[in-house]
Amino acid sequence: MNRASVEKECLERIRPGEEEKRLISEMASALVREIDDSGYAKGMVTGSVARDTWVSGDRDLDVFMLFDPSVKRDFLEKRGMALARDVATRFGGEIIEKYAEHPYVNTHIRGFDVDLVPCYNVEYASKIQSAVDRTPFHTRYIREKVDDLTGDILLMKQFAKSCGVYGSDHMTEGFAGYLCELLVLYYGSFDAVLQNAAVWTPGTIIDIEGHRTKDFDEPLVVVDPVDPERNVASSLSCTKMFEFSVFCRDYLESPSKEFFKIPGQLKISREEFNGEIRKRRTYFYSLVFENPYSIPDILVPQLRKSLRGIENLLERNDFRVLRSDCYMGPERSVLLLELLDEELSPVIKRTGPPVWNRSNADKFLYKHLGKTYSGPYIEDGKYMVEVVRKHLNVLSLLKTQGLAGAALGKNVKKSMEENYSINRNEEIWEEEFSGFLYNYLNKESPNVRILLKKTDDV
Amino acid sequence: MNRASVEKECLERIRPGEEEKRLISEMASALVREIDDSGYAKGMVTGSVARDTWVSGDRDLDVFMLFDPSVKRDFLEKRGMALARDVATRFGGEIIEKYAEHPYVNTHIRGFDVDLVPCYNVEYASKIQSAVDRTPFHTRYIREKVDDLTGDILLMKQFAKSCGVYGSDHMTEGFAGYLCELLVLYYGSFDAVLQNAAVWTPGTIIDIEGHRTKDFDEPLVVVDPVDPERNVASSLSCTKMFEFSVFCRDYLESPSKEFFKIPGQLKISREEFNGEIRKRRTYFYSLVFENPYSIPDILVPQLRKSLRGIENLLERNDFRVLRSDCYMGPERSVLLLELLDEELSPVIKRTGPPVWNRSNADKFLYKHLGKTYSGPYIEDGKYMVEVVRKHLNVLSLLKTQGLAGAALGKNVKKSMEENYSINRNEEIWEEEFSGFLYNYLNKESPNVRILLKKTDDV
Repeated sequence: MNRASVEKECLERIRPGEEEKRLISEMASALVREIDDSGYAKGMVTGSVARDTWVSGDRDLDVFMLFDPSVKRDFLEKRGMALARDVATRFGGEIIEKYAEHPYVNTHIRGFDVDLVPCYNVEYASKIQSAVDRTPFHTRYIREKVDDLTGDILLMKQFAKSCGVYGSDHMTEGFAGYLCELLVLYYGSFDAVLQNAAVWTPGTIIDIEGHRTKDFDEPLVVVDPVDPERNVASSLSCTKMFEFSVFCRDYLESPSKEFFKIPGQLKISREEFNGEIRKRRTYFYSLVFENPYSIPDILVPQLRKSLRGIENLLERNDFRVLRSDCYMGPERSVLLLELLDEELSPVIKRTGPPVWNRSNADKFLYKHLGKTYSGPYIEDGKYMVEVVRKHLNVLSLLKTQGLAGAALGKNVKKSMEENYSINRNEEIWEEEFSGFLYNYLNKESPNVRILLKKTDDV
Repeated sequence: MNRASVEKECLERIRPGEEEKRLISEMASALVREIDDSGYAKGMVTGSVARDTWVSGDRDLDVFMLFDPSVKRDFLEKRGMALARDVATRFGGEIIEKYAEHPYVNTHIRGFDVDLVPCYNVEYASKIQSAVDRTPFHTRYIREKVDDLTGDILLMKQFAKSCGVYGSDHMTEGFAGYLCELLVLYYGSFDAVLQNAAVWTPGTIIDIEGHRTKDFDEPLVVVDPVDPERNVASSLSCTKMFEFSVFCRDYLESPSKEFFKIPGQLKISREEFNGEIRKRRTYFYSLVFENPYSIPDILVPQLRKSLRGIENLLERNDFRVLRSDCYMGPERSVLLLELLDEELSPVIKRTGPPVWNRSNADKFLYKHLGKTYSGPYIEDGKYMVEVVRKHLNVLSLLKTQGLAGAALGKNVKKSMEENYSINRNEEIWEEEFSGFLYNYLNKESPNVRILLKKTDDV
């Protein structure tokens, strides 16, 4: 199948139909009207619905409530939340209060997942008081420029989803919808995005408005057209950037429908998982605990930090970590570690102070004198000793030091202090983690999935 | 016992008596006369005998044969060696031809170990043509300055011997006799050497003549009074420098006769050695081969290089080396390695090229596609794979790669190509290596020996 037909077929599938458009636009207008009528704020649809760039079947509807910038923040928050609750209630939606930088209301109305977000209606983007105030500017910017690129943007989003890199949340670390839109605008078409992204290098800078005022560390820099100080791609990881790059490359090389199919989550059975452990002959350990009470965008970085903390604890004690990963399930979180070592020799070599630091050197010397396997001896001017290792196996190390000796995320630590389990090899598999464990063992870049045709259509 | 009596008693023991002096000086004069009479060269006694700084019982006698600098090098070598052979023969000594930078003759005459060394009789030290030409200048320099410091120098040498740091050969990497003499001259007394060396730091510079013309890398720099470009302490290792430093420190702290006793070589029995292995639960491997044909000062660096080569081979393959050492016995050499790991998991993680290097990345991708435990996946912009490890245990690695995969010294490699054995744990101990193995397991700085009173007087 050639590219033109692949993309045509995909577009037919993902472009919202007239009926879908009518439904969502009626819903949006009704919500905006309700907000306008309150007299407190102006309603505005933002997000991909406002930009005509939503993928058919998406049910996310973002409605912002723009308050006059002269009102106090306290008023905005209280009045804004009250208004959001009113609106949601009037449409029969339940109220879920959420919190990003500001509180907002999430609700479900007639099959739509609606966010009602209070913000300031500032005149210029430079005057925003918080990140949410920037969203209306993004909407206006894209709406103005999107022209006849909606098809290209839809393809771009679907392609990024299939690649597993769509979303700027901390778990995904991928491409936000707005970033997808800007890339298509900048390069000029979906095809041009593919051609360019296929040869990306770290340090790529895109500055549509040519107004960048500072340097950025991130591998991809897309300067926000409404804010010269902001990198729209700041949460994109180097890994996801280049997963996308090779996905573009391989699609250009041999296009197929597969590149637009969003893969389903495959699972591994207990038997398969235990079989893999036996094949790898490494040592798997997991730490499992109740999800700490917080939002994913705060917890995911904490899980990662905790994983690094445990890894460092292990490596400091000479247990080598081959790989590790973490996962937040619906109920419980897991830190998974795959080790090259499980038991160690009781001899450990410790480096002491340089002997010319006499007071420290003497302290070290007398502390160890007569209590070593070998030493104290001098190596390159420093005292060295070979003494008894404290932690001879992983389990005893994790049990005694897992909480006290590792740098853990705050909420993670709190949850672990209440309760957590350490599991080894065959104890690890649970139905709840079967997707995560599948992904861990079958870790591969998204192009590999297509090259090997391991796919399960959704 | 106080310091004064310790040192007095030591001096009485090590200062040569009148009879010993007469004997050696007669012997020296006879040799010099013989050389002078030949008409080809001028005889000159060098070394500690000439400087009156030899320790009673030493039997080393260095006699140089100074040729006119106008003769060709070829003449000097041929004529010099012929003369040396003549002289040795006339005194009834057998002839052992040796080679440092130049050929010379070693012989044994009336209980003395005599070196007969041809060199050029240059006018200024700056005009030397090779290192041996410098020796007469050292002798003259010390003879001129030694004054009433001979007692201090004798104590210094005995102290350094007891510390195990006397000798500038490659195995010892310690203090040459000339260096001991210069240190006493510079600081002014044995006591002053102790006081100063006790607080040495790396980068200590001693420049008696104040004529240094360049910077040196070594931890101790003693600029040669007869050559501003030469560091007399260049072959002193950082380890030996500070072993001496702590030895000084501890002697000043609590002086005793022990500091002037040269320890004998203790040995470990097979049973003790095997017991230690069981205690340490590490994995010992040795490579044993015939001593390659060469002189120790060439072979010892080659042994060390080979040991590093084998270590790197092991570490590259994820077998961690706790410590290692090498030893050249009378017949055979041994490389000894103590490992933390003996068997490894069959999974190995390999880092591929960054994906933006498309040609290499694609090669890597297709090479590994479908043949991995996990991957290819992308990590920080690079392809990674987890594939089958080649060498799962030390023995198979050493057997297949010991010769081909490790950077070995040239002569060592030649000897190993003929034959070598790999031994593990209980197979390692042999009578021939029992001193070396004792030292390995009881490695300690020389002050520790005295603190723990583990000594065996000689």
